[in-house]
Amino acid sequence: MLDRYAYLGPAGTFTEAALRQVVGPDSATCLPHIDVVSAIEAVREGEAEYAVVAIENSVEGGVTTVLDTLAAGSPLVILREMLVPVSFALAGLPSQSLDAVRRIAAHPHAWAQCRAWIHRNLPRAWHVPASSNTAAAAAFADALAMHDDAPHTTADSTPEVMSGIVQRLGFDAALVPPMAVAHYGLTALAEGVADNPDAVTRFVLVGPPGQTPPATGADKTTLQVHLPAERAGALLEMLEHFATRGINLTRIESRPSGVALGRYSFSIDAEGHIADARMAEAMIGLHRFSPLVRYMGSYPMAGGGASPLKEGTHDADFAAAHAWIDAVRRGETV
Amino acid sequence: MLDRYAYLGPAGTFTEAALRQVVGPDSATCLPHIDVVSAIEAVREGEAEYAVVAIENSVEGGVTTVLDTLAAGSPLVILREMLVPVSFALAGLPSQSLDAVRRIAAHPHAWAQCRAWIHRNLPRAWHVPASSNTAAAAAFADALAMHDDAPHTTADSTPEVMSGIVQRLGFDAALVPPMAVAHYGLTALAEGVADNPDAVTRFVLVGPPGQTPPATGADKTTLQVHLPAERAGALLEMLEHFATRGINLTRIESRPSGVALGRYSFSIDAEGHIADARMAEAMIGLHRFSPLVRYMGSYPMAGGGASPLKEGTHDADFAAAHAWIDAVRRGETV
Amino acid sequence: MLDRYAYLGPAGTFTEAALRQVVGPDSATCLPHIDVVSAIEAVREGEAEYAVVAIENSVEGGVTTVLDTLAAGSPLVILREMLVPVSFALAGLPSQSLDAVRRIAAHPHAWAQCRAWIHRNLPRAWHVPASSNTAAAAAFADALAMHDDAPHTTADSTPEVMSGIVQRLGFDAALVPPMAVAHYGLTALAEGVADNPDAVTRFVLVGPPGQTPPATGADKTTLQVHLPAERAGALLEMLEHFATRGINLTRIESRPSGVALGRYSFSIDAEGHIADARMAEAMIGLHRFSPLVRYMGSYPMAGGGASPLKEGTHDADFAAAHAWIDAVRRGETV
Amino acid sequence: MLDRYAYLGPAGTFTEAALRQVVGPDSATCLPHIDVVSAIEAVREGEAEYAVVAIENSVEGGVTTVLDTLAAGSPLVILREMLVPVSFALAGLPSQSLDAVRRIAAHPHAWAQCRAWIHRNLPRAWHVPASSNTAAAAAFADALAMHDDAPHTTADSTPEVMSGIVQRLGFDAALVPPMAVAHYGLTALAEGVADNPDAVTRFVLVGPPGQTPPATGADKTTLQVHLPAERAGALLEMLEHFATRGINLTRIESRPSGVALGRYSFSIDAEGHIADARMAEAMIGLHRFSPLVRYMGSYPMAGGGASPLKEGTHDADFAAAHAWIDAVRRGETV
Repeated sequence: MLDRYAYLGPAGTFTEAALRQVVGPDSATCLPHIDVVSAIEAVREGEAEYAVVAIENSVEGGVTTVLDTLAAGSPLVILREMLVPVSFALAGLPSQSLDAVRRIAAHPHAWAQCRAWIHRNLPRAWHVPASSNTAAAAAFADALAMHDDAPHTTADSTPEVMSGIVQRLGFDAALVPPMAVAHYGLTALAEGVADNPDAVTRFVLVGPPGQTPPATGADKTTLQVHLPAERAGALLEMLEHFATRGINLTRIESRPSGVALGRYSFSIDAEGHIADARMAEAMIGLHRFSPLVRYMGSYPMAGGGASPLKEGTHDADFAAAHAWIDAVRRGETV
Repeated sequence: MLDRYAYLGPAGTFTEAALRQVVGPDSATCLPHIDVVSAIEAVREGEAEYAVVAIENSVEGGVTTVLDTLAAGSPLVILREMLVPVSFALAGLPSQSLDAVRRIAAHPHAWAQCRAWIHRNLPRAWHVPASSNTAAAAAFADALAMHDDAPHTTADSTPEVMSGIVQRLGFDAALVPPMAVAHYGLTALAEGVADNPDAVTRFVLVGPPGQTPPATGADKTTLQVHLPAERAGALLEMLEHFATRGINLTRIESRPSGVALGRYSFSIDAEGHIADARMAEAMIGLHRFSPLVRYMGSYPMAGGGASPLKEGTHDADFAAAHAWIDAVRRGETV
Repeated sequence: MLDRYAYLGPAGTFTEAALRQVVGPDSATCLPHIDVVSAIEAVREGEAEYAVVAIENSVEGGVTTVLDTLAAGSPLVILREMLVPVSFALAGLPSQSLDAVRRIAAHPHAWAQCRAWIHRNLPRAWHVPASSNTAAAAAFADALAMHDDAPHTTADSTPEVMSGIVQRLGFDAALVPPMAVAHYGLTALAEGVADNPDAVTRFVLVGPPGQTPPATGADKTTLQVHLPAERAGALLEMLEHFATRGINLTRIESRPSGVALGRYSFSIDAEGHIADARMAEAMIGLHRFSPLVRYMGSYPMAGGGASPLKEGTHDADFAAAHAWIDAVRRGETV
Repeated sequence: MLDRYAYLGPAGTFTEAALRQVVGPDSATCLPHIDVVSAIEAVREGEAEYAVVAIENSVEGGVTTVLDTLAAGSPLVILREMLVPVSFALAGLPSQSLDAVRRIAAHPHAWAQCRAWIHRNLPRAWHVPASSNTAAAAAFADALAMHDDAPHTTADSTPEVMSGIVQRLGFDAALVPPMAVAHYGLTALAEGVADNPDAVTRFVLVGPPGQTPPATGADKTTLQVHLPAERAGALLEMLEHFATRGINLTRIESRPSGVALGRYSFSIDAEGHIADARMAEAMIGLHRFSPLVRYMGSYPMAGGGASPLKEGTHDADFAAAHAWIDAVRRGETV
């Protein structure tokens, strides 16, 4: 039986693009969910082996919810991260020219990411809000399908006919995820539409604990760390546990702890793998300091960019220091 | 002319509940938006004077997007924060008994917040996913309206008729925000449905800069702080600028800076008002340290819970220290 | 053969008082040295098994020199610390009354420690500088001895005769260490002379490495830690290695490293014993961070006052944290 | 009337060499004192306008005492620092050859600084302890003077006569400060005797407050800072006040505060001048944090080696940050 992967559907989303970096359509059962919470819960409830969800900078939303949902409830770990460029296709009617586009359906998140491009290339176009990145694609596809299904001749595909479709839809083009173009049988009037060509969304593959991928030398570890209530400067103190072991953080987000007003918990991505001595020592320190530390996975960093190791934090440095302290304790050196 | 307030609509959302803490329905023009981004942009584009958006722990999503949208683009500041309890009504048909509920429409975020309540009170009910917190309320209302509009006698409101409505809808109750009950003319089968009675969503009122509310003694300041790229330990160093002035942070979230991979910016809520000496000194320190600090408003804390001031951080302490250094510089004391 | 103890002589010094806390006059060979350096070097050169030297707040000087001499050269460790109250006897002639004292011989350090007492009790007395704490005692004793040796009758011990002695000496009383009174056969006109009744000098017993006393639960560890040159904030970073393990420092002194201008080394006393997990982890961290860490002994704290252990820093906390990380690495928990 | 300078005498000490960097013998009244405490007190009591005392790494001792004496009692400030190389002359009889030296009088501190040189150049010489760096010079001079005063012929200055002098003295050469050679009319058998050619002693000129020298761009400020008792991590917190203003420390020494056991005070040299914005801000922070901060002078660094200013800590950076916060407070920027 194929493994089941829950993801934020429908087909054609950026999340599906992330899922496709992990499995092909024929090598897994892909289960679209209406929401990231239900995708994650599907794994907890045994309806899927894995879930793919956005964890940072998403144009599909839900990042905060993902963090909170992963951090509470039965344990899940992150097994892999995947980066997907934030880049849209402008989908339109087959016969349409880019210059003629006037009304662009787009989810406001998508519109915000492409505003400058639109302003530069289609200064006379305006925004028709859509309720999701794929909603406009689906509406387009439905309209075309209805037209195709109707008895008509080739002459029917005239500009006049198309214009009628557009009038019923209320827009003549849509910003959609690249994968949605083919999926919905649309025509791309422009591709690579994005104001920031370097923007990416970070997705993760989550599954049950007990299957940490091996260290690669460029890994991340995700942790949830609760702060002790009673200590002033507790956040600084927590960060010092990473700093003294030379560990760089790539993400930190405070979350209300749920325990009491003014109590905080932090969702953290730290460079390094639980198999690395520096990460293990930092986690040992955090375990002593924090009322609750939750390990949420060590996995390879996507996209490279691992920081160079700080002097004195290689596994060999830890081994040498342990050997020294043992010798001092035996009275053999000072 | 009434001030215009953009918010995440439609009517009946938790965001509308936050908006109602600020203005009544008759004292302002309230403009529902499809998305938080477009609500915020409405202020930037002059279509509204203010926007109300969730900024933490929302069951309506978009928190990350709100932070990013506020932090980029033309300046906006936070003028006020409002807390709204995360508590739902279970809306049903007028004739229905709670015990008979079997299929509950709910957005997955809402479902996740009420799972234990449902399990305890309606163990045989199951989840029908809805696309938003108000979508099920609207569908319910439409179905009832259609039924009401149809020619019928009182006898038509029999259980059999209701059952037909339910069958067409696909659910027989819905978890909806409390305000949606009256707005959509629904019947509350249960109120105060929530697993964590203390959970709240934090909303903010945003507007153009230049109108900071006066300090109250229990205020917050929101800042966006970019880290210099080249310094190891830059996050610790940034936090020390707050710590040395005795300032407690209530929220911190790293955001990709958009400038380059591995460059970070932080969205921060800090206790204190820009009119307080300790906050001004901390911001002076951050301005020296950071390539970009953006002030995003000082405003009263909602819900109380301000930390006691650390010794040596009252305005009078700063004044005394300045007076001392001036006297030392003049050679009058040591 | 009796163990040999080198100390800052001659007999009667505060250092001898410290030595007497360790050994009695008959159970050891006590070797007075002219200077702390030569006392320490006597151990290095095999002329003594141990040395007793002041390490903090001495009225006999040389503390800085002790630190530097211990930190350089062949390894020595501290085996024990001893506190000696900074309290003097005012020694005079047998027949003299306290009120009549006018000229007090005292080393300037001693004078500085007793100035207020003298002002209060002997407002008309003035200071005759002496070159050491025992020099005046010895001069007194010599003068008395010469007088005793001279052929004379009891009548010779008249005030007139005494006055003659005093005139030759140039002083009529002396501030001396309490032990010097008996040793030099003097008469104490007053005892417990001190402005600060709580002032103590801290002495240590040093010897060759390899003989660390067992942990008592209230111990100190002395370390010499060199800073890496190239790192800004290196001092803060060093201290964080102690702080993250909950270790309190009781003494820190920067010393020019001798390697290059602007390079520093630190002499540190830290609470805890090398057998304690927290101390071992801190030293492991320092060893990774520093170009040179030198262990200079773990030994019981004299005088009590050990800080309460910070939460999360007991040996059991370290053991629990190590067990947790091992279980996480095996995939058995999160 | 000439200004009076108190210093650790007698003539010929390293301290006199430091004094000579400040004033010539004819432009001031130089008052030799038996001890650093009495030299400092001479200024407090109006017997001298200034004192010159060693403050770091001295071969004449008393550094700890200097710090404690300056930090307590009526205010004094440091006006200047002077570096004196730790380098000795080997003084002998006029007729003596270096190779023939066998017994070298030296204070143990001096001997410790020259041990390797002696071992290399005079392997058969041994140490005759002297009680100070100038005591042997004075003894030498006295012996020669007595010889010169005695009725004798040139023939009397034969090796045999000299040998007699040496026998009475107990040594045939002495390690003395370079200035002592001429002062005592000795003959230098070797000059520049030192194991570490870079070793220097740091001296300071102290006087009454109210006369801070102007900033030069390479200055130091000396402070005495007491720690609040009740705060864990207080030392780290104190250092953060310097670090957040980019200030480098060149010396730090913990001193028992004298107030209570376990309470500490720190003697600190920090780079920068009280006229610099960064130093003033750090001192303002310390004043808020500490129960007692005592300013002990800003003065030019001797010997250069000022650290490059950290980015964001120039006066202009402080001015820009203050201008920004003022504009934010007026609502003119964010």
